[in-house]
Amino acid sequence: MKYYAKPLARLINELSRLPGIGGKTAQRLAFHILSMEEKEARALADSIIEAKQKMTYCSVCGNLTDTDPCVICSDPSRDRSVICVVETPKDVVAMEKIKEYNGLYHVLHGAISPMEGIGPEDINLKQLIVRLQNEDVRELILATNPNIEGEATAMYIARLIKPSGIRVSRIAHGIPVGGDLEYADEVTLLKAMEGRREL
Amino acid sequence: MKYYAKPLARLINELSRLPGIGGKTAQRLAFHILSMEEKEARALADSIIEAKQKMTYCSVCGNLTDTDPCVICSDPSRDRSVICVVETPKDVVAMEKIKEYNGLYHVLHGAISPMEGIGPEDINLKQLIVRLQNEDVRELILATNPNIEGEATAMYIARLIKPSGIRVSRIAHGIPVGGDLEYADEVTLLKAMEGRREL
Repeated sequence: MKYYAKPLARLINELSRLPGIGGKTAQRLAFHILSMEEKEARALADSIIEAKQKMTYCSVCGNLTDTDPCVICSDPSRDRSVICVVETPKDVVAMEKIKEYNGLYHVLHGAISPMEGIGPEDINLKQLIVRLQNEDVRELILATNPNIEGEATAMYIARLIKPSGIRVSRIAHGIPVGGDLEYADEVTLLKAMEGRREL
Repeated sequence: MKYYAKPLARLINELSRLPGIGGKTAQRLAFHILSMEEKEARALADSIIEAKQKMTYCSVCGNLTDTDPCVICSDPSRDRSVICVVETPKDVVAMEKIKEYNGLYHVLHGAISPMEGIGPEDINLKQLIVRLQNEDVRELILATNPNIEGEATAMYIARLIKPSGIRVSRIAHGIPVGGDLEYADEVTLLKAMEGRREL
């Protein structure tokens, strides 16, 4: 780093700590930031501080929000009888983008992973139980990721909630739309066969 | 952007203005920043502000620096009789990394490009002439990029300086080390042939 003056070296170092930003990219971004207008650079820095200060987690669903409860939890037009359980706030965004789902969410902030020592008590699960006890929920849609941890989490929640009589469903696995049978892995293909529907 | 709370949308927007950072990457970076410790996020923001405030251009050579003159221009162990002319501060870093060159630099901050309306007066050329008049320079190495603009700039400077008796040289063009003749473009191959040396 001795090729750079200290403030520049520091900026490159900070940028290279971001995920997916290697040394070369960090250098390119840093030089770009130095070539920006003072006002623009300040806007970037301010947006980092502001987002970090104003964004919190919704006390109801655990989603990222700048109001508490979040806009989804406090939206009267939402169907309060359905809760979709996801792992991260990013998943909420992905789900919202399909513009079809009108229920509420619950963000677990992770998935059960015995390998990594993450148990049911380490994710935002207790709050989900509280919601199910206090609110009139008809269906719980488990939309955790289709990997080992996500499946294990879905199974765990399903077993936990089913005795209460609330309908518990899991999003479908199968060949992605536009995907190619030839290139689908065996597990996906198996899931697609298992999940086949009569036409 | 309505899927995100305002501070988050603003952060994603600011990040996506950086070069090479698309919408998806900006989202990923923004979520990562929100998951960072308050202290870390502040360090990132501060490094942007600090770099922007403290970094200026060296009044002698035009390189990016936090001192004026820069560390290279004020280093007594440097050979002050050679000046290497480059287009950008990044080129200085690239040149320094080879650890062979011990002379001074001059950063043009661009190249002559009639296509884009950039003439000799739009780059940091006047200051180079001043330096050549006041300092005892023996050789001027033209290390502008090997593209049309860089070549035109090198030619222009060579014609301007040569009458003064200062030796003017251009870095060699040819096949990159580790490169493959088969994949070299014709112009590079031609330059490699033209620049051949007796063994």
